[in-house]
Amino acid sequence: MVFETFTRLCGVHDALGAKLAEQAGFEALWLSSLELHTAARLPDMDILGISEYTAAVDKICDRVGIPVVVDGDCGGGSPINTIRMVREFEKNGACGICLEDNQYPKRNSLVGGVRRVLANPKAHAMKIRAACDARRGDFVVIARVESFIAGLGLVDALERAQIYTDAGADAILIHSKADTPNEVMRFADRFFNRPVVVVPTTYGKVRERELWAHGVRGVVYANAGIRAAMKAQRQVFGRIAKDGMLARVEGDMAPLSDIWDVVAMDDFRENEARYAV
Amino acid sequence: MVFETFTRLCGVHDALGAKLAEQAGFEALWLSSLELHTAARLPDMDILGISEYTAAVDKICDRVGIPVVVDGDCGGGSPINTIRMVREFEKNGACGICLEDNQYPKRNSLVGGVRRVLANPKAHAMKIRAACDARRGDFVVIARVESFIAGLGLVDALERAQIYTDAGADAILIHSKADTPNEVMRFADRFFNRPVVVVPTTYGKVRERELWAHGVRGVVYANAGIRAAMKAQRQVFGRIAKDGMLARVEGDMAPLSDIWDVVAMDDFRENEARYAV
Amino acid sequence: MVFETFTRLCGVHDALGAKLAEQAGFEALWLSSLELHTAARLPDMDILGISEYTAAVDKICDRVGIPVVVDGDCGGGSPINTIRMVREFEKNGACGICLEDNQYPKRNSLVGGVRRVLANPKAHAMKIRAACDARRGDFVVIARVESFIAGLGLVDALERAQIYTDAGADAILIHSKADTPNEVMRFADRFFNRPVVVVPTTYGKVRERELWAHGVRGVVYANAGIRAAMKAQRQVFGRIAKDGMLARVEGDMAPLSDIWDVVAMDDFRENEARYAV
Amino acid sequence: MVFETFTRLCGVHDALGAKLAEQAGFEALWLSSLELHTAARLPDMDILGISEYTAAVDKICDRVGIPVVVDGDCGGGSPINTIRMVREFEKNGACGICLEDNQYPKRNSLVGGVRRVLANPKAHAMKIRAACDARRGDFVVIARVESFIAGLGLVDALERAQIYTDAGADAILIHSKADTPNEVMRFADRFFNRPVVVVPTTYGKVRERELWAHGVRGVVYANAGIRAAMKAQRQVFGRIAKDGMLARVEGDMAPLSDIWDVVAMDDFRENEARYAV
Repeated sequence: MVFETFTRLCGVHDALGAKLAEQAGFEALWLSSLELHTAARLPDMDILGISEYTAAVDKICDRVGIPVVVDGDCGGGSPINTIRMVREFEKNGACGICLEDNQYPKRNSLVGGVRRVLANPKAHAMKIRAACDARRGDFVVIARVESFIAGLGLVDALERAQIYTDAGADAILIHSKADTPNEVMRFADRFFNRPVVVVPTTYGKVRERELWAHGVRGVVYANAGIRAAMKAQRQVFGRIAKDGMLARVEGDMAPLSDIWDVVAMDDFRENEARYAV
Repeated sequence: MVFETFTRLCGVHDALGAKLAEQAGFEALWLSSLELHTAARLPDMDILGISEYTAAVDKICDRVGIPVVVDGDCGGGSPINTIRMVREFEKNGACGICLEDNQYPKRNSLVGGVRRVLANPKAHAMKIRAACDARRGDFVVIARVESFIAGLGLVDALERAQIYTDAGADAILIHSKADTPNEVMRFADRFFNRPVVVVPTTYGKVRERELWAHGVRGVVYANAGIRAAMKAQRQVFGRIAKDGMLARVEGDMAPLSDIWDVVAMDDFRENEARYAV
Repeated sequence: MVFETFTRLCGVHDALGAKLAEQAGFEALWLSSLELHTAARLPDMDILGISEYTAAVDKICDRVGIPVVVDGDCGGGSPINTIRMVREFEKNGACGICLEDNQYPKRNSLVGGVRRVLANPKAHAMKIRAACDARRGDFVVIARVESFIAGLGLVDALERAQIYTDAGADAILIHSKADTPNEVMRFADRFFNRPVVVVPTTYGKVRERELWAHGVRGVVYANAGIRAAMKAQRQVFGRIAKDGMLARVEGDMAPLSDIWDVVAMDDFRENEARYAV
Repeated sequence: MVFETFTRLCGVHDALGAKLAEQAGFEALWLSSLELHTAARLPDMDILGISEYTAAVDKICDRVGIPVVVDGDCGGGSPINTIRMVREFEKNGACGICLEDNQYPKRNSLVGGVRRVLANPKAHAMKIRAACDARRGDFVVIARVESFIAGLGLVDALERAQIYTDAGADAILIHSKADTPNEVMRFADRFFNRPVVVVPTTYGKVRERELWAHGVRGVVYANAGIRAAMKAQRQVFGRIAKDGMLARVEGDMAPLSDIWDVVAMDDFRENEARYAV
């Protein structure tokens, strides 16, 4: 189960990234709403639906040995939608879901200039409870608290975390857009009832061992995959277009043999041989 | 229309890469079978179906100003499947399809150790003709000749190219896995009836102007996107896992502001403001 | 364009029903939210998403010669979602969308025991406007008024209809769950600015010519398809199970030759012959 | 497990039909290729792909208590595709797959005028073996023998059945387009190694007890659902169009209350109440 020891979740948007993150040694994966929307060139605003997430979950969970948590945003417009999410994601191999207390449809928490009114915590607790009731096996329900994002402060965050815990949440993700980990550490210092998870996108200088020392049990590197892929593609595309040839970017691209390895081409070729006439 | 002047097509697998390639200055996009399968962590062996390609075409063609050609592999198991491909891809915004003369289900042309028996050229010509008949508007049908890949030589390549041209192909893609462009240039030197397109994955030192001098009219940088994304994610994931923090990979990742730009967040925010109560 | 003369829309949930309705002489089709959810054995509560609707639109609009209007429920949780609906549905061949002024996620209007609080009419008007701005060609935006369903009466209905008209709606669908057409007729008697459309599910004894005489310009037989299919399958399945043989239900089933006809098997066979080697 | 006692499988194409068949008392369901293609108004010629089947399996298997066998046609173009089918279908709740020895892409066995060349039985056996190896739990692999359809006679059928049995098939479906059950009975009289299943579409007068007496262990009523739905919709649509009103077809349609029942509306309403604030 995730969070029994310190758990690092790596944000991914496709099955390729999922395998690469597993190979890098992460303990778990995070199917990121931001990554999935960005790959589809859509803003992270609840535009993609359950069936698109489910298709991604299906492929990401296939032939990967570490657990996959799905960033479930607000759990859809009602607990009825949350229930369907849980059932579809679990069926396709996910080990958990994270549900945040934004109002549906959500806007990405790190976009500036958005007037944020969070969901009623009791209403969000009902989505947490619905998710817990809907799961069939070992499936983790993480409640994400957006109090700091919305400028509501520590007391509100602790109250919400307790309400979600009472509703059955297995862990609390405390989000922040500050450039230091101070506010999430203050939260973690005072919240003992469930494992606390953080997302250091804006406070990337924090070290895992500092977080651990404050009682944090998990860290989500939520969007490193898509941001690395974006920068690399932009550079390589720009260089090819400028050079009028491929040669100078060879070193910036994985060789084809790496692709054959990561997709497990040998397994498929073995199957071809095994089932050939 | 593509290929009237020298046309560079950039291989992509998702809508993010499509926009980045447009911004880099490419004249057209290539929805690559290898890239799409690799992103799904599947070998490039005709495993994904028309509906998965169509979903990718839909998103890739959305809000992009340059034409998109779909790597249509063998056109499915029969001309009936080819017809459906053309209709679905065109409806979702593609400007063309490339059909190769491998037998269905195909195996990627650059994988070693595969015994290759090409399709009967007359049978492949029928798929070309079916594609031409099925299109409704300006839609380019490119015939890909695999003679060099299968070791059949120049004469076979020229014969096949002519047969496909007679069947209606708008352009010929001559494929090669050699480490120099010699064989594709010999082909281009002798084939005048349609624009010739090449894929310099294995002979990346060739310059576009050299190709142009031999009469080549288009070049497909077929898999730079996924290979750049793969290498970058592997490095960044490895570094985060080793460092236990995010700080040292910041320079290897696009900033969030780049993501907001590439997805056109401002347009969505403007719409939010325009339609707010 | 629909509604220039009296237009009968037949509710459908799949491409088979669409063709059957066209053959029966209907002027247009209605991709019904109730039918689509029922076929998936889900309640009509905004559980299916845009991609599932789009997949249905794609198949329903294929090779059908009459226009298809999509029952777009509440247009999703925000105008941003409405815009995406319009773009995806139009791209796949729909000629229009209907947007109702329930709050998202909606509950079917004919289910009893639901406490109904309608959307703020100004907020709904913004979805109407967003839909109008997002369309690219001849695409009809129908605003559905739920005042009678929510017990709000004629004045509220007329006010809402005018607000939606001012926002750009091409037609008004006035819904009712009464067992007579009196309230929709009173509405139609007083609303002149746009074509008025009704859904006589609960007041099925009304004749089209009576509606026409009150100025109604369109009628949606919204769920006849799925209800006929359901009754027939229940009867045939029950009979086979009881009889332990097929013979006695032959007369209740279309012969296979009808299936070949409705799917246009001959066209496919002709294509097979045309493109055979 | 299916086929331990006499098992009747009812052909379905959507989740509504699945529940109706369960309520009628069938022991199992058959996700029919003919039904799924017909609902999409496509000929039964391997046009829909794995992802479309998987989406149907997902919904059909949801909240149904009887096993679902998927009509897997030829298992795709190669054993690699067969493996993917099995994995996707099993993950989404199917209990089995049937694989027929037509060449890919198949043409429906009951369409006239098709020149039929069956797959090499050893090649088909490899798909059977691949399917058996790919399953993870209790999942039935049925091999369908098309010898009678192709005019190859009893000896060929028995040989093929044995080859497929040796490859691991759990049951043999012996297909026929004769108007009497004589040839399938002759087969069942002589084949003892696995349960034999038949599809009496063209010989519908046979009774289950006669089949049982010849050792048949299962019967697939393969397309009653879509054919009943088609006939009923055609009649109801025609009548509405002719009458210009709904009243006279009320008796031919399930009431809305039946829809609420079959989709288990009460369960959803209970959940709404349980998770309301």
